[in-house]
Amino acid sequence: MKIAIYGYGNIGKGTELAIRQNPDMELSGIFTRRDPAAVKTLTGAPVYPVSELSARKDDIDVLIICAGSATDLPELTPALAKEFCVIDSFDTHARIPEHFAAVDKAAKEGGNLALISCGWDPGMFSLARLYSNCILPEGADYTFWGRGVSQGHSDAIRHIEGVLDARQYTVPKEEAVAAVKSGTCPVLTTREKHLRECYVVAAPDADRDEITRKIKEMPNYFADYDTTVTFITAEEMKRDHSELPHGGKVIRSGKTGLEKEHSHTVEYSLTLDSNPEFTSSCIAAFARALWKMRSRGITGCITVFDVAPADLSPLSAEEIRSHLL
Amino acid sequence: MKIAIYGYGNIGKGTELAIRQNPDMELSGIFTRRDPAAVKTLTGAPVYPVSELSARKDDIDVLIICAGSATDLPELTPALAKEFCVIDSFDTHARIPEHFAAVDKAAKEGGNLALISCGWDPGMFSLARLYSNCILPEGADYTFWGRGVSQGHSDAIRHIEGVLDARQYTVPKEEAVAAVKSGTCPVLTTREKHLRECYVVAAPDADRDEITRKIKEMPNYFADYDTTVTFITAEEMKRDHSELPHGGKVIRSGKTGLEKEHSHTVEYSLTLDSNPEFTSSCIAAFARALWKMRSRGITGCITVFDVAPADLSPLSAEEIRSHLL
Repeated sequence: MKIAIYGYGNIGKGTELAIRQNPDMELSGIFTRRDPAAVKTLTGAPVYPVSELSARKDDIDVLIICAGSATDLPELTPALAKEFCVIDSFDTHARIPEHFAAVDKAAKEGGNLALISCGWDPGMFSLARLYSNCILPEGADYTFWGRGVSQGHSDAIRHIEGVLDARQYTVPKEEAVAAVKSGTCPVLTTREKHLRECYVVAAPDADRDEITRKIKEMPNYFADYDTTVTFITAEEMKRDHSELPHGGKVIRSGKTGLEKEHSHTVEYSLTLDSNPEFTSSCIAAFARALWKMRSRGITGCITVFDVAPADLSPLSAEEIRSHLL
Repeated sequence: MKIAIYGYGNIGKGTELAIRQNPDMELSGIFTRRDPAAVKTLTGAPVYPVSELSARKDDIDVLIICAGSATDLPELTPALAKEFCVIDSFDTHARIPEHFAAVDKAAKEGGNLALISCGWDPGMFSLARLYSNCILPEGADYTFWGRGVSQGHSDAIRHIEGVLDARQYTVPKEEAVAAVKSGTCPVLTTREKHLRECYVVAAPDADRDEITRKIKEMPNYFADYDTTVTFITAEEMKRDHSELPHGGKVIRSGKTGLEKEHSHTVEYSLTLDSNPEFTSSCIAAFARALWKMRSRGITGCITVFDVAPADLSPLSAEEIRSHLL
C-alpha cells in the first residue's frame, strides 16, 4: 500500500512514524502547502508541493489528510476525495453530518472511497460507545477525557494579557469515575466530571491575580469547571510540559435481567504518552481497511462504524481467527 | 426480526431476556431437547420440541444455539446451519479453525449465514485484541479474567471426595494489573496474573485438610496458581454465592515515536453481575447484524471480526453518525 500525507503538523509527523511500524505500507511522500525545501521530515521522507499531487497520483493508494477541522478539512477533504481515496480526522462533532454529505458526494463522483473522523475521539471512543450501546440497550454513557493537554484551552489562556505561555490539562475527577463504575448511573454536572489544571508563564510585570481571575471566569472554557492556576517559569514549562499526553475513558453502565436486577459496566480506556502519535496510529490502521474496501469496489464516504474489524489487520482471516479470537 | 432459541440453559434464559430489551426483535419460541411441558420459561415464551424446528422455519430469521462447546456445538451448529441462519458461543479457542470450517461448509450448502464464537471471550475481548493490535503493531497483549465464577473449576472441585458443593472465583492480581498498566510490558507467569479463591461445602465427616491438599495440587486447574480454600456452610453458599458474576480486562501496551519513546495503554474492561446475561446480550446484538448481512446476500460462516459495527445497531447510519460518532 502506497500512502501519502497531506499536511505536516503534529498528526502528519505522527502518521509518518506510524507508517514505519506497518511493514505492508510505504510512504510515497509528504505534500505541503509550505515551501518543501523548508520542511525537514523526521525520517527523511520526501516532501513535495501540493501542486504535484495529481502528477504523483500513481504513487498514492490512500491520501491521509492531516489538517485542521475548523477551516481546512471542510474544504480539503471533499476537494481531494474527487481524485484520491482519503482519510481525515475531522473532529467537530456537530458538523459531521454536513461534512459526511459533502465528502460522500465528491468521493462518489470521483469513484473513490473516503473515511472521515478517524482517530480516538471521534474514532475509537465512538466505536466503544456504539458497541456498548448495542449490547446494553438500557443504560447510560459516560465519557471522561484526560489526564491530557487540551490545545484549545491552552491557546485560550495564551490570549490573556500578560501570559507568555500556557498549558492546560483536562483531568477527570476520580470520585466521578468511581461513581460511574459503581453502576448507579449517576447524573453528573460538568463541574463534577472534570477538573482543569492550568500552568502559566506570566510576563515579569503581569498582574497574576488578574490573570487567574480572567482564566477562572472565562465562559465556555473555564467558568463551568473547578480550575487551578499555577504560575511556573519558562524553563519549568519546557522541562515539565513539552509533551502532549492525553487519554480518557468511555464507560457504559447498563442493566439486564428479569427485573433489571443485574448491572454491567463496560469500560474502554486510553492512557497515551502522545495524543498525535496515537491518533496517527489509528489512522494508519484504518488506511489499510480503506484500501481493502476500495479494492472490493466500494466508493463514497464511510466512518469507523462501517469498517469490519478484520479489514484493519495485515493478517489473513485464518490467522486472525487462530490467534486473536 | 424473528429469533428462536435452541437450548434453555443459562445462555438460553439470558437470550430470552435480552430479546425483550431489543424492540426490533421478536422471540418466536424456545426449542428444547427435553419434554417441552417440563420447561417453564422466564417470560412465558412458547416452548417447542426440536423436532418442530423445520416446520416452524418461516418464524425463524435467526436461530441462536445455546448449548455446550465441548460436545454439543461441534455437532449442532453445522447441522442447523444447513437450514437456518445461526449464532453460537463456541468457546474452545484451540478448536475454532475446525469448527469454523465445518460451519462454513454447511452454511454455504444451505445458503445461510452463520456466526460462531459470539459473547465476550471469545467475542468482545477478541475485538479489543484485534483493534488494539492493529493500532499498536509493536506491543504486548494481556488478558485478565475476573473477579468471577469459573464453572469448570467449580465442577472440578465438586468431583473431590467429601465435597458437597463448591464455587471457584478467578481473581486478577492487582499488582500484575498495575504492572501492565505502567507500560513496562512485564513478562508475567500464570501464578503472577491470577489468584483462585475456592469456597467449599464439605460433608460433615470429610477430611478438610485432604480436600484442601487435593484442590491446591490439582494439575492444570490449580497447581500453577496461588489458591485459597475456605470452608463454608450450605446456607452461606446459597446466600453469598448463588450469582454468576464475571468480567475481566484486555490490555495492550504499545510503543510509538521516532525512538519508540512513547508508551500507550489501551484497556477494555468488563464488570458483569451476570456472565450469562451479558453473553446473551452480545449475542442478541450480533443476531441483528447477522440478519442484516444475510439480507444483503452474504452466506457462509463469519465471526465478530467480519461484522461492521454499524450493523449491530437498530439505528440508521445517519442516526449513528449524529449521536455516537
